[in-house]
Amino acid sequence: MKDFNFNISTKILFGKDQLNNLADEIKKYGQRVLLVYGRSSIKKIGLYDEILNIFKDNSITHFELEGVVPNPRIDKVREGVKIAKDNDVDFVLAVGGGSVVDSAKLVAAGFYTDSDPWDIVIKKEKVTNALPLGSILTLAATGSEMNAGSVISNEETGQKLGWGSEYVRPKFAIMNPEYTYSVDSYHTAAGTFDIMSHTMENYFTLNDGAYLEDRFAESILKTCMKYGSIAIKEPNNYEARANLIWANSWAINGLLNAGKSTAWSVHPMEHELSALRDITHGVGLAILTPYWLEYCLDNERSEKIAEFGYNVFDIEKTESTFEDAKKAIESLREFFISLGIPENLQKEGFKKEDLPIMARNCVNNRPKPEINGFKNLKEEDILNIYKMAF
Amino acid sequence: MKDFNFNISTKILFGKDQLNNLADEIKKYGQRVLLVYGRSSIKKIGLYDEILNIFKDNSITHFELEGVVPNPRIDKVREGVKIAKDNDVDFVLAVGGGSVVDSAKLVAAGFYTDSDPWDIVIKKEKVTNALPLGSILTLAATGSEMNAGSVISNEETGQKLGWGSEYVRPKFAIMNPEYTYSVDSYHTAAGTFDIMSHTMENYFTLNDGAYLEDRFAESILKTCMKYGSIAIKEPNNYEARANLIWANSWAINGLLNAGKSTAWSVHPMEHELSALRDITHGVGLAILTPYWLEYCLDNERSEKIAEFGYNVFDIEKTESTFEDAKKAIESLREFFISLGIPENLQKEGFKKEDLPIMARNCVNNRPKPEINGFKNLKEEDILNIYKMAF
Repeated sequence: MKDFNFNISTKILFGKDQLNNLADEIKKYGQRVLLVYGRSSIKKIGLYDEILNIFKDNSITHFELEGVVPNPRIDKVREGVKIAKDNDVDFVLAVGGGSVVDSAKLVAAGFYTDSDPWDIVIKKEKVTNALPLGSILTLAATGSEMNAGSVISNEETGQKLGWGSEYVRPKFAIMNPEYTYSVDSYHTAAGTFDIMSHTMENYFTLNDGAYLEDRFAESILKTCMKYGSIAIKEPNNYEARANLIWANSWAINGLLNAGKSTAWSVHPMEHELSALRDITHGVGLAILTPYWLEYCLDNERSEKIAEFGYNVFDIEKTESTFEDAKKAIESLREFFISLGIPENLQKEGFKKEDLPIMARNCVNNRPKPEINGFKNLKEEDILNIYKMAF
Repeated sequence: MKDFNFNISTKILFGKDQLNNLADEIKKYGQRVLLVYGRSSIKKIGLYDEILNIFKDNSITHFELEGVVPNPRIDKVREGVKIAKDNDVDFVLAVGGGSVVDSAKLVAAGFYTDSDPWDIVIKKEKVTNALPLGSILTLAATGSEMNAGSVISNEETGQKLGWGSEYVRPKFAIMNPEYTYSVDSYHTAAGTFDIMSHTMENYFTLNDGAYLEDRFAESILKTCMKYGSIAIKEPNNYEARANLIWANSWAINGLLNAGKSTAWSVHPMEHELSALRDITHGVGLAILTPYWLEYCLDNERSEKIAEFGYNVFDIEKTESTFEDAKKAIESLREFFISLGIPENLQKEGFKKEDLPIMARNCVNNRPKPEINGFKNLKEEDILNIYKMAF
């Protein structure tokens, strides 16, 4: 197990009545709030009105940044920074899924710089402060509510990039599983895959001795498999929604990679899919992951992939670790397909000529022109995986 | 899953070189430190001298509370509060195992009251403030470094009682697995049982839908079983010590009981053993737990105990859940015995006449004269379990 620091300061308020605590939590930090949200969903479920009533009852002034979209854009963040600065906002409240929280994080950091917020994303500008922020989560997927990371897209440059700073770790997150009841089956599946992908990115490493972390990871994967299916069949199943949203936080808050060297592989490959054709992130991950594992499968890595099969899919151990690993990958693919995922990129509208462009962009967007994850991937490897997944 | 709040603010500095960060962490809060420790072990491993050098190099003034013993005593805490007050201490540093951290917590809270610190333990005095405290852990057992609880014994009254306050949650914990290399096999086993017991107290509940939490619990149990045995055979095995000490924190920091109603059963029964005959806490827990599970085993509870067997001990599922549950309990007992635990109370020096005294004390020390855990236990039930374990 490698050395690490671990410090999750985000306060989680989990359950049905936690909105009652919103005003008290905000007032610890400020009273001029920038409310960041997406399109109509928080209005449809009545949450928007509830929040506005709470603001009114507690003399909290608010301004709005509306219209954050999936694969959230830098333009919207720039708009948010302007509103925040023009109105001397002192707190940012994100209400929605990961795109909203990610955007709110960059608004919070962008508030304290005169540079373009995109400079923060491309690491040209260092984050030295941020507005305090909190979130009310309405989607189980990215886990952004309990960590210090964010992913933003730039349509002009065609980039989708991650950045992070401890300054933007949310102060609190209100998690009421009922707010996710209205998420349709497609996005419930995509969110479940996103959680599973975060988990697998942390899980697939070689010989690091972080046994506990990997058992925790398997716990999250089993939870996603059990409740992803249930939530799709029964959208209002509280137990399913509760387990999924709680799993969503733990997949990516620092627990699973504590003591491990985890360089993520599938996420950077998927970011090129989303950047080029605005595919739903979780769906892109689910399409790529089994092909990526197939590409990684060799004698050195077969044991870890087989272990994944034994512990997550209850695959029976045979004499061939290699064959067991193959079965594990097949089981993963079958699970994805059972939740309605398209099995290849073509079905999501990708064209053959996209593949080399994405592979090139993928390495170009990295500090070194390769992915140093479970298996080292150069441009050619990435292209091969895209081709397999095509 | 029930509603809950979750907020672990303790910063964990995990690994071999983390002592280098001690001075910086302390200086965030103060520079007049009360150093709390046990007997000779931190001197033997050279840690005491290292800490004193760090204090010297960083102009940190320090005072000492030495001689905290297992099942730590209120007398020693009173001594610590006096030293802290007399010297205007502004930070408490606990170096040792759970007894040291638990004592330091009560010193930290006792600093801000004129009442006897025992009044805090018996809830006569409310905690409204505490000195900031940190810890350097040298034993994987109680998990006190990452939570807000503490257990203190009072020899005069014959009580061993738990108390807690968010004010005493440590600001940081330095966890270097190497500091636990010198823990002998008996205490390594006892510490492992303690971790497992915390986990099982959180795990054994009925139908609360907290699926993720229970998979996390099984992860910790498997980690203890794998590495408890290894650490006893190879005391200097870093991977084993690292997994055990990290499991120790997660068993009792709030993760495993998030969303569950967990009223602990074995701990209050064990506290009477330790209070009467100063038995090693983890050993008392290990002796009692299988008998407690046997006593709980009925049609309503067999499924949960069997699940424990399937998921932790890889017991094969048969047609009889009841028989599977029995096998699970037997597997647990076998594991304990394999690590050298005495199988009954007699071997630890208890006498038959102790049993009714302890059962009576157990209910007398509770707000209601019963234990409302996995199965409700009245004085008679507790006596029966003691008799089974005798």
